[in-house]
Amino acid sequence: MKILVINCGSSSIKYRLFEMPQQGLLAKGLLEKIGEGKSFLKYSAGKEEYKLEQQVSNHNEGLELILSILTDKKIGVINNISEISAVGHRVVHGGEKYSGSVPIDDAVIKVIEDFADLAPLHNPPNLAGINAAINVLPGVPQVACFDTAFHQTMPRVAYMYALPYELYEKYRIRRYGFHGTSHRYVARRFAEILKKDKYTVNVITCHLGNGTSITAVKEGISVDTSMGFTPLEGTVMGTRSGDVDPSIGFYLIRKGYTADQIDNLLNKKSGLLGLSGVGNDMRTILQKAKEGNDRAQLAVDIFCYRIKKYIGAYSAVLGKVDGIIFTGGIGENAVEIRSKSCSGMQNLGIVIDEKKNATAIGRESKISTDNSPVYVWVIPTDEEIRIAVDTYKVSGLDK
Amino acid sequence: MKILVINCGSSSIKYRLFEMPQQGLLAKGLLEKIGEGKSFLKYSAGKEEYKLEQQVSNHNEGLELILSILTDKKIGVINNISEISAVGHRVVHGGEKYSGSVPIDDAVIKVIEDFADLAPLHNPPNLAGINAAINVLPGVPQVACFDTAFHQTMPRVAYMYALPYELYEKYRIRRYGFHGTSHRYVARRFAEILKKDKYTVNVITCHLGNGTSITAVKEGISVDTSMGFTPLEGTVMGTRSGDVDPSIGFYLIRKGYTADQIDNLLNKKSGLLGLSGVGNDMRTILQKAKEGNDRAQLAVDIFCYRIKKYIGAYSAVLGKVDGIIFTGGIGENAVEIRSKSCSGMQNLGIVIDEKKNATAIGRESKISTDNSPVYVWVIPTDEEIRIAVDTYKVSGLDK
Repeated sequence: MKILVINCGSSSIKYRLFEMPQQGLLAKGLLEKIGEGKSFLKYSAGKEEYKLEQQVSNHNEGLELILSILTDKKIGVINNISEISAVGHRVVHGGEKYSGSVPIDDAVIKVIEDFADLAPLHNPPNLAGINAAINVLPGVPQVACFDTAFHQTMPRVAYMYALPYELYEKYRIRRYGFHGTSHRYVARRFAEILKKDKYTVNVITCHLGNGTSITAVKEGISVDTSMGFTPLEGTVMGTRSGDVDPSIGFYLIRKGYTADQIDNLLNKKSGLLGLSGVGNDMRTILQKAKEGNDRAQLAVDIFCYRIKKYIGAYSAVLGKVDGIIFTGGIGENAVEIRSKSCSGMQNLGIVIDEKKNATAIGRESKISTDNSPVYVWVIPTDEEIRIAVDTYKVSGLDK
Repeated sequence: MKILVINCGSSSIKYRLFEMPQQGLLAKGLLEKIGEGKSFLKYSAGKEEYKLEQQVSNHNEGLELILSILTDKKIGVINNISEISAVGHRVVHGGEKYSGSVPIDDAVIKVIEDFADLAPLHNPPNLAGINAAINVLPGVPQVACFDTAFHQTMPRVAYMYALPYELYEKYRIRRYGFHGTSHRYVARRFAEILKKDKYTVNVITCHLGNGTSITAVKEGISVDTSMGFTPLEGTVMGTRSGDVDPSIGFYLIRKGYTADQIDNLLNKKSGLLGLSGVGNDMRTILQKAKEGNDRAQLAVDIFCYRIKKYIGAYSAVLGKVDGIIFTGGIGENAVEIRSKSCSGMQNLGIVIDEKKNATAIGRESKISTDNSPVYVWVIPTDEEIRIAVDTYKVSGLDK
């Protein structure tokens, strides 16, 4: 049976169609610039890749286009949309309500709407995708997989900020954490590799992509994570600042900045981009650093230094660490970043084998030395396959 | 010879008079509510304590009162103000300009004025104290000892935020760090205890008072510290939040808060006070927690959890840690806080001896087990004596 996995941004739909339970990828695609004019769809099935330019004005039309391509006589992979047994949706913010994936009903939709306030850039388009799928595939089970769900096991000591308690009661201001599907996937995969019960393994998972976050997983559950109330907190990211003195906000307001300008500054113009001045792509920045660009080198150094500090902090939190996992686009591919982030931490039991590290590009592999008390592994993440598996189970299709 | 040490708040003057170079304390006092009506002076010399209520409308009048008490025929300790050879001033913010204590001249005053923007609550009263001392003790050498000075050795990777680089160039937004005099004092004292050269010792210094900060000292110099652009960042404090998601600021602005309200909220109503709801004094909070108050227990737990995370982070930064020092009112006295902050960190080489810890109250003592690879010590801090020593040296009185 087929399961469609959808990840909607404000002007995009990313999707994959899986054969389940075999987890075979049948087709994938990305529709961009919805409602912006010049929208286009990049689509692939097997080794074939296509690009289609077509005006699409909203997520509903977008999903109709995607389904027409999936069922296309020439380039499609299914005969009829009725072959799609369920749809899994990535939803960013499930607040304190959901600690796992759930079948979507009116109550779930209401919760996603309620939490739009906490994830204004993500929950509304996620919801647009859900509504479009309900419209276009009526009667097909829809499942929501929340980025926040895996972190709902965090203890109060990790998720509460030292703010007036009333802010938590009134606005639910607390640490939520994100990238949960990815952290969960690599933590589970690591337990499989060790051939251990997943609820016995302590691991620090480093998801390093354009967004980056680090999670402390204790006996299989998330006990702390670097992203917080929003995905702005934590390590340095492509365009996000991560941790800064909270006073900088009101300092800038007194200098004449508006709240929207500061939001934009911290979320869109900071991080690797703001430091390096050459862009937000780590590949470019590493190249520029090699060429002697001082600010690019600074961006690389700070990116790694902050990861190192989180690894140290979570080593203290976990008490015993079985492994450190690198995943995400940067974590899976950037040899130098892994090396620098783990350097000089023999006192924490972490020793990288530079030869192994140098060849571990985009593939699952151990990169610590054989004597390193703490394992260090590269494990490519696959959030979509996790959503497909969740959707398969939550819809009861495995019964 | 006598050296007067002064620490001025917006409505207070704290002072001590030392006999130098012996470092003997001759007298100390605290004048409060300057300019607020009902101002009063608490003063002690030897074992005698006095309280004097007298209207004082500004720092100049305040210092005149203090000098009149110091030279009082009955309760004073000197015959004439001419016996005071130099005055040392605590100044909070010296920006990037000063990495040590300096004799005060017009240029120094200008810098302190310039950085008032970065420490609006501290630098202006520090300056009022300096001007008063110049007025009242003309011709006497005045020395400025900056809270930020010890941290000026931090590398760029630790002091730069991942913000647009222009914010550093235009507004000097970066990590400065505070409590430098205290961190330096206990780090130096620890090297003395070990009978090692101060530039060979790696130590994590935890200054836990109403303000709290933690510093990573590598080979005798500060390489990272938890307070940042202002004293708001870092660990949980009496009324300050420490680290929070930077987006919380603009979230609250959208909820109708003003910048001043958020400033007040994060600096005055957060931390132990905001979490516990019972006050900002750790003694009260520990008592309430023992009595079963859930929010007081939460405040204690989060306070210690954040300290633990910083100890972990700085263990990673330092690579090799010789010792962890607890100092400040809480650090020197709160047995339970030290115990909880260091619990479960055997993997980092940190093992507390609970018996030793229980009796180490307000006195210099080792509290780690004899087998603990990392020493843990309680070392009472004395910022005033450091300022006196610096003042003595910087004024050339030791020649």
